[in-house]
Amino acid sequence: MDNKQFVKEIADIENEFAQWYTDVVLKTELVDYGPVKGTMVIRPYGYAIWENIQKDMDDRFKKAGSKNAYFPLLIPMSFFTKEAEHVEGFAPEVAVVTHAGGAKLEEPLAIRPTSETIIGTMYSKWIQSYRDLPVIMNQWCNVMRWEKTTRPFLRTSEFLWQEGHTVHASEEEAQEETLRMLEVYRQFMEETLAIPVFTGRKTEKEKFAGAVATYGLEAMMLDGKSLQIGTSHYLGQNFAKAFDIKYLDKDSAQKYGYTTSWGTSTRMIGGLIMAHGDQRGLVLPPKVAPIQVIIIPIAAHKGGVNEKAIELRDKLVNAGIRAEIDMRESSPGWKFNEWEMKGVPIRVEIGPRDIENGVAVIMRRDTLEKSNISLDTIENDVNNLLTTIQKDMLEKSRARRDKKIVEADSLDGILKGVEGKNFVKAGWCGCRECEDKVKEVAQATARVMCDEEGVPCKCAICGKEAKHKVIFARAY
Amino acid sequence: MDNKQFVKEIADIENEFAQWYTDVVLKTELVDYGPVKGTMVIRPYGYAIWENIQKDMDDRFKKAGSKNAYFPLLIPMSFFTKEAEHVEGFAPEVAVVTHAGGAKLEEPLAIRPTSETIIGTMYSKWIQSYRDLPVIMNQWCNVMRWEKTTRPFLRTSEFLWQEGHTVHASEEEAQEETLRMLEVYRQFMEETLAIPVFTGRKTEKEKFAGAVATYGLEAMMLDGKSLQIGTSHYLGQNFAKAFDIKYLDKDSAQKYGYTTSWGTSTRMIGGLIMAHGDQRGLVLPPKVAPIQVIIIPIAAHKGGVNEKAIELRDKLVNAGIRAEIDMRESSPGWKFNEWEMKGVPIRVEIGPRDIENGVAVIMRRDTLEKSNISLDTIENDVNNLLTTIQKDMLEKSRARRDKKIVEADSLDGILKGVEGKNFVKAGWCGCRECEDKVKEVAQATARVMCDEEGVPCKCAICGKEAKHKVIFARAY
Repeated sequence: MDNKQFVKEIADIENEFAQWYTDVVLKTELVDYGPVKGTMVIRPYGYAIWENIQKDMDDRFKKAGSKNAYFPLLIPMSFFTKEAEHVEGFAPEVAVVTHAGGAKLEEPLAIRPTSETIIGTMYSKWIQSYRDLPVIMNQWCNVMRWEKTTRPFLRTSEFLWQEGHTVHASEEEAQEETLRMLEVYRQFMEETLAIPVFTGRKTEKEKFAGAVATYGLEAMMLDGKSLQIGTSHYLGQNFAKAFDIKYLDKDSAQKYGYTTSWGTSTRMIGGLIMAHGDQRGLVLPPKVAPIQVIIIPIAAHKGGVNEKAIELRDKLVNAGIRAEIDMRESSPGWKFNEWEMKGVPIRVEIGPRDIENGVAVIMRRDTLEKSNISLDTIENDVNNLLTTIQKDMLEKSRARRDKKIVEADSLDGILKGVEGKNFVKAGWCGCRECEDKVKEVAQATARVMCDEEGVPCKCAICGKEAKHKVIFARAY
Repeated sequence: MDNKQFVKEIADIENEFAQWYTDVVLKTELVDYGPVKGTMVIRPYGYAIWENIQKDMDDRFKKAGSKNAYFPLLIPMSFFTKEAEHVEGFAPEVAVVTHAGGAKLEEPLAIRPTSETIIGTMYSKWIQSYRDLPVIMNQWCNVMRWEKTTRPFLRTSEFLWQEGHTVHASEEEAQEETLRMLEVYRQFMEETLAIPVFTGRKTEKEKFAGAVATYGLEAMMLDGKSLQIGTSHYLGQNFAKAFDIKYLDKDSAQKYGYTTSWGTSTRMIGGLIMAHGDQRGLVLPPKVAPIQVIIIPIAAHKGGVNEKAIELRDKLVNAGIRAEIDMRESSPGWKFNEWEMKGVPIRVEIGPRDIENGVAVIMRRDTLEKSNISLDTIENDVNNLLTTIQKDMLEKSRARRDKKIVEADSLDGILKGVEGKNFVKAGWCGCRECEDKVKEVAQATARVMCDEEGVPCKCAICGKEAKHKVIFARAY
């Protein structure tokens, strides 16, 4: 009873996906709207996911040779104008500080929308010789992009992210770094978020403002739309020349460096929700779930139940599992709904009869399967089950996605494909007009190019010779 | 030779302490100046200290029941005016966003100088019932206070910090929380930063704008000046009333909550430098040192030395020690200076003869003592030595500080005391005029009250009856 009543509070996932998303993020207390339009407050349950993401990712970055640093929030507006494409791309979204300390500023300051310009300025000062290269730094920070239409996690005026910025002596090394970090991201998305991604180069239209080449990671959401869940940019010498990042090479010549940048953000949390959720709410992969196991005492008024639950919680916590008990006064049914909605990977029910029999009932959130397990071996069994759930969630996502990829050789085929909630692979001649036409007719964009799969003979839009194979999709 | 040359590059610690500080923070690459006046760039070596601080502190907060969250950077200016003292205190320092997304904003937005107002607004929405209390949240973020005179870490327009914000049902519970967090901070400063602190209540003049009572942690720097290294505020119902933080109590009455806030910042890094440094540069406590052990190969061109150094590094890293090798081409003497300046707690020298004898030479940065240790037991010995250094550094700081505390019963005594680089304990009548007089005559301020030590009979300034015992000092 409780169950149905509860589920009703979340909009229908099939027919009202946007409302389902809003209901889920608010009701599970991941996030709330901030007082300023377009801002979000990340509540403790949402922030704990972000902390788990940060820790996992940060370890990967450090293994890849990156060091963290922190650069200022405020950037002189004049810095943006030094790289022509960059200012064109970001100026319209910038928030500007004009007054501070009770006086008007001489030069207005931008709140960073991204930090290539200020980091480039510092790199120019720090880098003197080939011995100083490569420089590989990352920062975890907030950035601001004034957006007209916003949605929690997916697009907000302020968001949290990490941005890596590197400088290399050669073009080859910088290109390798761009692809190496793309691969670090891909592994993270699959291994930790259980989200399979397509990676590939972006078209000119979709690339980062100021990049030579942008590589994206695209994930399919439950509604068939694509979420750009991370990007890695090869910047060539564009920023090195604009910010005078030069080094004295072994041959005593002054040379410009080659730079890259790469970033992911709190948008990933939106991706988690829309890649794994169901009608009951969130389904969180164990690696990032703030609570991995929730213990619900049954008939807790009976002697010994709460004590046994506490003993069990301590056992699991000591085994390195994030376990909690819900000892509130509400009914077990109400609690089941609450924690299912919150996406906790494993529920353990423990009542007087279970204790007598030395077992507990466990439920997997991802499959909703219930089973009995022995209290004697529960730490191992739960740990193994968490590993299984993590793996199964990726496989399930991948299988679901792979069924929703179609090929098309006409504009109409692309339209039908995306209307059927698919990603559509099609040949493309490389011209902007054809790309715009897909947007106009099918409300879809070129997500990434996947030329390595083999380029079709002709462009699906104009019929001329194709230069690329592209994944088209509607996107967030 | 190398040594003397190197030391010369850092200003004299006895006679030019301010320049010594600037030399050390820049030359050790902890920090650099940002392009906007008053901003700093925290470089990887400095940021690694901050990461170690964060991790240690964050564990303590979580054990104390706090959960992390993230609130927006931008606060409507009108929020500040809701608490009269608060706006008066912070309005002059605020940086203001007036334009965003290419248009003028309807209401100007402040970049947070502290978040009581925006967090209070959200708490008002989230807290309904006594069941929702207490609320204990913390956020790690950047804040901005437009300062006229700035110095890296000590006072910058933007800095990184953590701010805890709590709501309680009763006055007693909120006051307990204020003191409990003060104690969490005290333990952290002593156990992790190896900095002994005085804690106590601040005078009305020195308290946080909007607080009922502020408690400070004051640390003595090498020049005898005090650094406020953390604060914990009891806010009473001031912010609860201003932001309508109300709950339905068990007796069905609507009641205002009682709130607290507490914060520490990247200022702590400035404290570390000025509490432990010496003429050679930084001396870092092992718990926060980015590199705990630096290995310097001697006569590295000889076969087997680098290999042995790598083996040793791996052994130490596997034992959980942050160890690195300096394999650059420079001379050992140059490297000794470099890593001494950078404050690495232990140096290990390893050369061909050492390898033959199965030993290595180690040097403690804090005492500069050298000794031989066996390669067989090096992990244990190094681990024990790190523990000893951590403990000794606190004791050394405490002994040094305790010698520099004097009592005074006259304004002249206070002046002589602070001129002699001491903290001065003196009776105070409690009036603002006397406090201002100390500032005027001795350029010293009331740091904290320590009434628990016993209040002297008369005020050292005016001679009337004393109400408090105060620690006066010159301060950062």
